[in-house]
Amino acid sequence: MNIHHPFSRRDFLRVSSLGVGALALSDTLMSFAPKDGKKLGIALVGLGYYSYGQLGPALLHTKNCYLSGIVTGHPAKAEAWKKQYNIPDKNIYNYETFDNIKDNPDIDIIYVVLPVSMHKEYTIRAAQAGKHVICEKPMALNAKECEEMIAACKKANRLLSIGYRLHFEPHNMEIMRLGQKQIYGKVTAIDTGNGFVYGGTDNSAWRLKKAMAGGGGLMDMGIYSIQGSRYTLGQEPVAVKARQEKTRPEFFNEVDETVYWELEFPGGFVATGKSSYNHNWGYLHVEAEKGKFGLEPAYGYGSVEGYTPAGPMHIPQVIHQAMQMDDFAECVRQNKQSRVPGEEGLKDMKVVDAIYRSLDSGKKEKIV
Amino acid sequence: MNIHHPFSRRDFLRVSSLGVGALALSDTLMSFAPKDGKKLGIALVGLGYYSYGQLGPALLHTKNCYLSGIVTGHPAKAEAWKKQYNIPDKNIYNYETFDNIKDNPDIDIIYVVLPVSMHKEYTIRAAQAGKHVICEKPMALNAKECEEMIAACKKANRLLSIGYRLHFEPHNMEIMRLGQKQIYGKVTAIDTGNGFVYGGTDNSAWRLKKAMAGGGGLMDMGIYSIQGSRYTLGQEPVAVKARQEKTRPEFFNEVDETVYWELEFPGGFVATGKSSYNHNWGYLHVEAEKGKFGLEPAYGYGSVEGYTPAGPMHIPQVIHQAMQMDDFAECVRQNKQSRVPGEEGLKDMKVVDAIYRSLDSGKKEKIV
Repeated sequence: MNIHHPFSRRDFLRVSSLGVGALALSDTLMSFAPKDGKKLGIALVGLGYYSYGQLGPALLHTKNCYLSGIVTGHPAKAEAWKKQYNIPDKNIYNYETFDNIKDNPDIDIIYVVLPVSMHKEYTIRAAQAGKHVICEKPMALNAKECEEMIAACKKANRLLSIGYRLHFEPHNMEIMRLGQKQIYGKVTAIDTGNGFVYGGTDNSAWRLKKAMAGGGGLMDMGIYSIQGSRYTLGQEPVAVKARQEKTRPEFFNEVDETVYWELEFPGGFVATGKSSYNHNWGYLHVEAEKGKFGLEPAYGYGSVEGYTPAGPMHIPQVIHQAMQMDDFAECVRQNKQSRVPGEEGLKDMKVVDAIYRSLDSGKKEKIV
Repeated sequence: MNIHHPFSRRDFLRVSSLGVGALALSDTLMSFAPKDGKKLGIALVGLGYYSYGQLGPALLHTKNCYLSGIVTGHPAKAEAWKKQYNIPDKNIYNYETFDNIKDNPDIDIIYVVLPVSMHKEYTIRAAQAGKHVICEKPMALNAKECEEMIAACKKANRLLSIGYRLHFEPHNMEIMRLGQKQIYGKVTAIDTGNGFVYGGTDNSAWRLKKAMAGGGGLMDMGIYSIQGSRYTLGQEPVAVKARQEKTRPEFFNEVDETVYWELEFPGGFVATGKSSYNHNWGYLHVEAEKGKFGLEPAYGYGSVEGYTPAGPMHIPQVIHQAMQMDDFAECVRQNKQSRVPGEEGLKDMKVVDAIYRSLDSGKKEKIV
């Protein structure tokens, strides 16, 4: 338990109402009380599905932060959000007035929820406007862009975090503990997959455009499989060999559909992983010397279920994004690095870059 | 009053709760009671802003129809809508399973809310699946596509309506009456404009792509100005001369930003109109022999205000889309043409086509 933020009865009631009963899970889940009682203001940039379907609703459950502003090019969207979330006109921006956010004390954190190709520009502009930044995953089109984003935020002396909600999801956190602390002995095998059946095109057609999305299932869903392997082991992979499959080439004519890979870690351990826009996958299976553990469903917005050699995990569900945003607000208060900083996004993008190189070369590629 | 659907006390209470007090306005507002008490099912195709911000909420206020299904390529969106609107799994489709809607008795009407370039395909597939169709405005990329859509719906013996919500908005309906019945004498001048300041790009960037949107401010906003002129006079224009202006050519590099036009009617009467992605316009000003009348704001989702030589209009506000969808459901029940059928969309697209020809030629162009 964080001594700066003693766990109060009020906290207990609040967390309970989210369904978090397993209070001994981790001190990180309990250090959410703001120091001075004032919530930090978050502005969402981009009001597509992830904002309206996930982040907006989650921000009704946060305790350290609240939805204080929005950025959208569409006055009609602004109007709808303004009413729903009671946002004052002065906290509503568009992409041309964006930089004026620097003068707005109601906005402490900017959350970039745009198509991937716009992450770099708006993360950097947000930091230059003096605001702390959360950038959605995948962090950027490639590792080089990630490096520029990290450097720009450092230069502006602002914190940068990536929208890796599962680092705040207790089943995934338990997997990190079981794997990294070798609770069941050394990990001997990891297999993980993530994907969904992309059911055709619609307003979000940007996901199928390489220039806007950077890639397909690998960028959008594979990131979770890569993360899962990395945080189970607590190590960084050194090489990868990948292959891909397309059953709907006319539809996925610019981006990858299904990708399979073997991810090599120091010492030669190999984790198998896959991603897809054509299969409903969402699991992380781990074998260790003393038994098997894992998650299924592992990575979705809905419930997560886990198992260990001792039986099923009995861990309540939480609102991932509420936990994630509250933690970042607390990091901002304490001026400390998030557990999912820009560097964490960069690590994944180095793996992604190597997987794409391997798909091109047909060979094992080093992760550099 | 429609004799098949006598206006009951229950209707009165319901309409009142929407803020419709001016009950003498039009019998069309009062003929909404379903024959057998069963609401018709509507499926929304495409879950972008207009669906989540306008149509979904409006469908909580409809009486003849309800949101029975959705079509989306994204399982996560499907999940969020399913919870919010209590939609059973069997009524959730994607773009690949779309045609199976033909076997679903819960879905009577399909509402196409996709980027413009997809209107034709999904309107035709909906009709071929045996469903009645509402297609959002602008109806299609051009008049030729509109004709194909009308023909396909006729061949399938299904009703087709365009999302012209203002034909069900009482201030605009009053303008139709004042102009067409010459309540203040012959109309001597019409000036109308519609537009907003497009504040940069975001997830809805398809609006800036000519291949997906068909055009810019003219297609999206100018349609209202064209409609306003046409329904004030109750006549069809015969020619148009147009010019355009671009202050942000790098941004509007594919589509029109601001367009001005002179719309000529039979007998030589000329209405001036304009559309923009760079000005906040939304008015319809009419001069008649015995005085001036008009609307401002005229066309937005929010409140509409009107004036006549006798003073301001005192007409309550309604939920435009709820009125529009309820009317179409009633048309389906009675198997009668909507007041805004495909032919109404075609008439506007013929004007739009002529405006684009005039922008190219620099000359007055006939509307054919």
